[in-house]
Amino acid sequence: MDSQQLFILSTDEAARRIAKVVAQMQREGADMVLLTDNADKYYVTGRVFAGWLTVAADGRVHAFVRRPVHLAGDDVTFVRKVEEVELSGDVIGLELNTLPAADYLRIDAMLAGRKVVNASTIMRRARAVKTPAEIEKIAESGRRQEAVYRNIATLYRPGMSDLDLQIEIERALRKAGCLGQFRISGDSMELFMGNILVGDNADNPTPYDFAMGGAGVDPSLPVGADGTVIAPGESVMVDANGNFTGYMTDMTRTYALGGLSELACCAHDCSIAICEALAAAGVPGTKASALYEEARRIACEAGLEEYFMGHRQHAGFVGHGVGIEINELPVIAPRSRDILEAGNVIALEPKFVIPGTGAVGIENTYVVEEKGMRCLTNAPTEILPL
Amino acid sequence: MDSQQLFILSTDEAARRIAKVVAQMQREGADMVLLTDNADKYYVTGRVFAGWLTVAADGRVHAFVRRPVHLAGDDVTFVRKVEEVELSGDVIGLELNTLPAADYLRIDAMLAGRKVVNASTIMRRARAVKTPAEIEKIAESGRRQEAVYRNIATLYRPGMSDLDLQIEIERALRKAGCLGQFRISGDSMELFMGNILVGDNADNPTPYDFAMGGAGVDPSLPVGADGTVIAPGESVMVDANGNFTGYMTDMTRTYALGGLSELACCAHDCSIAICEALAAAGVPGTKASALYEEARRIACEAGLEEYFMGHRQHAGFVGHGVGIEINELPVIAPRSRDILEAGNVIALEPKFVIPGTGAVGIENTYVVEEKGMRCLTNAPTEILPL
Repeated sequence: MDSQQLFILSTDEAARRIAKVVAQMQREGADMVLLTDNADKYYVTGRVFAGWLTVAADGRVHAFVRRPVHLAGDDVTFVRKVEEVELSGDVIGLELNTLPAADYLRIDAMLAGRKVVNASTIMRRARAVKTPAEIEKIAESGRRQEAVYRNIATLYRPGMSDLDLQIEIERALRKAGCLGQFRISGDSMELFMGNILVGDNADNPTPYDFAMGGAGVDPSLPVGADGTVIAPGESVMVDANGNFTGYMTDMTRTYALGGLSELACCAHDCSIAICEALAAAGVPGTKASALYEEARRIACEAGLEEYFMGHRQHAGFVGHGVGIEINELPVIAPRSRDILEAGNVIALEPKFVIPGTGAVGIENTYVVEEKGMRCLTNAPTEILPL
Repeated sequence: MDSQQLFILSTDEAARRIAKVVAQMQREGADMVLLTDNADKYYVTGRVFAGWLTVAADGRVHAFVRRPVHLAGDDVTFVRKVEEVELSGDVIGLELNTLPAADYLRIDAMLAGRKVVNASTIMRRARAVKTPAEIEKIAESGRRQEAVYRNIATLYRPGMSDLDLQIEIERALRKAGCLGQFRISGDSMELFMGNILVGDNADNPTPYDFAMGGAGVDPSLPVGADGTVIAPGESVMVDANGNFTGYMTDMTRTYALGGLSELACCAHDCSIAICEALAAAGVPGTKASALYEEARRIACEAGLEEYFMGHRQHAGFVGHGVGIEINELPVIAPRSRDILEAGNVIALEPKFVIPGTGAVGIENTYVVEEKGMRCLTNAPTEILPL
């Protein structure tokens, strides 16, 4: 059988990423991290495989592979179970945020009393500052996603429901190369290919920690489109999957048949103003919590407090890191302790839910640079005609 | 704000499901289980919500809700964190297979030395025997999925790649009411809306524990369609998402432009023969391992051993339970200890990968009844023309 190299990042790119991981390991005092989360393995090696990956404090990486059978490379060993993984050092990092308890208990038994620290923290911090190659992957997703958003009006046909339109948007995204997979850290949040919210459905609260809601069509997946027929005077908010490259952008635009109420238009303009203000303010060293407070201040000053980030149920953030997963660091929220760094990639989504109209506002994905946040999702921002 | 009842199953249906959970709790000696996995909460209450659910040994259920804010009911308490959940009894069941280690450690600290047993085992066993209402939901998914499969030939256009066809199948499934979400227990397996495999791409090994492979188009999601253009003499295997009701069916059919090789046709017939033999043999009390051995015996007798369940990489099972998730109990595998019970719902997928042709065979979803396994996915089984 022809084999494939497991490690497919360039030597330089791998070194850059591993240096970030090692720096965070030092901060947590870890001698080695044991990784099994797909997002983390993809980050370090450039591919998803079944098995485990160790990173030592000196930057040495070793893959312990269960499947697929055709991978090869120095520093690759095939194993059947985690007990065959070699762990060295006194302090071992495990991905406590995603590692199932049963696996944790097995590994903890192998460790025979050695200290465990949280490798989820290490990896989330390492992954929060993107390399130039990662930023290019995200920018490429942004270009492709934005091209689809520019054509959404051509997908609309009179009489369509939110679901009808969503299905055509899904198809257009897939035709443009969207991988479909919508990676969310952890198992508790679920969403299929994004959210299309029409009118008052946007005001239906969901169980999930997304910015916006929607009743969905089934209590097994209570989020998003619910079959509402698109009508004049109601907003159509499109927040769909931007994973084209293994790295995602997160982008929202608002559409409408004809005009929306003055209040809704005012709130939409306020969303654009918040994005612009935060993008200008978001230089390295800025507190994420300060960005949130600035967003909230602008919304309150416009008299829109009760509609900001939801109406019946409010989201507690206005932005979030994005990359391999949709919910990365930093978090732009009131109690966030994150400080912006150059290379952070952040989606800002100051949205409003206006009763009788629906959700309005925009979302863009930005990269933090020395002079502020540069937008990677550049479709027009006004309320777009369907 | 208008509120909604959290518990939306009928009283009888809830009682049936809770009785199954309580029976398995007794077997494991659990005084209470604490559930937070979405699939388990959906099973007991009929809906997904954010928070926790307790089931006591006397069958009493209590929901501790984080979100959404508009749920209501007796036995519903709103909480912010797991420490507010009331846990009673000496032995507590936690979902060790899916609960993240960090959450486990928090809860274990609350338990102050009380014994923990695995609620994943309890819930997987309880959910393995479906109620009549669950079987009807699965059958409804089967009817809708089968209607889409009957029309796949109408979606084909000359020159299409596997991905082009997959995108049209995805759209047809969504138009027929498919919810999109493809629920897999655990975080390590990933798949978007199913697998369309053309020709030798079926022989590319994947990291995931699915029956078939495929290289995919990106190393972040190395499974499934890889852009192969559909050509005469190559098989087109369609194994796509059957979640229409919160409960899924799993169904595969093989298509082709014109005829396939004699070996491939022989293997396809063998797959049908295995399904028929196992469906007849699969009465309550049958060992799952015996069903696997019977499948393997038929494949070997036909001289097809080296192609059975893969060629470069072999899957270690021929069938699996299906319901809310795609990987439920029982598992039809050589070392499985599962014994078939009436009400099990099982997907059988005896497939073959023939080099130069691709994947052939079928998959059906069955319910175990007194006289054997009744098929819930009834599209034609022969190799279907595109």
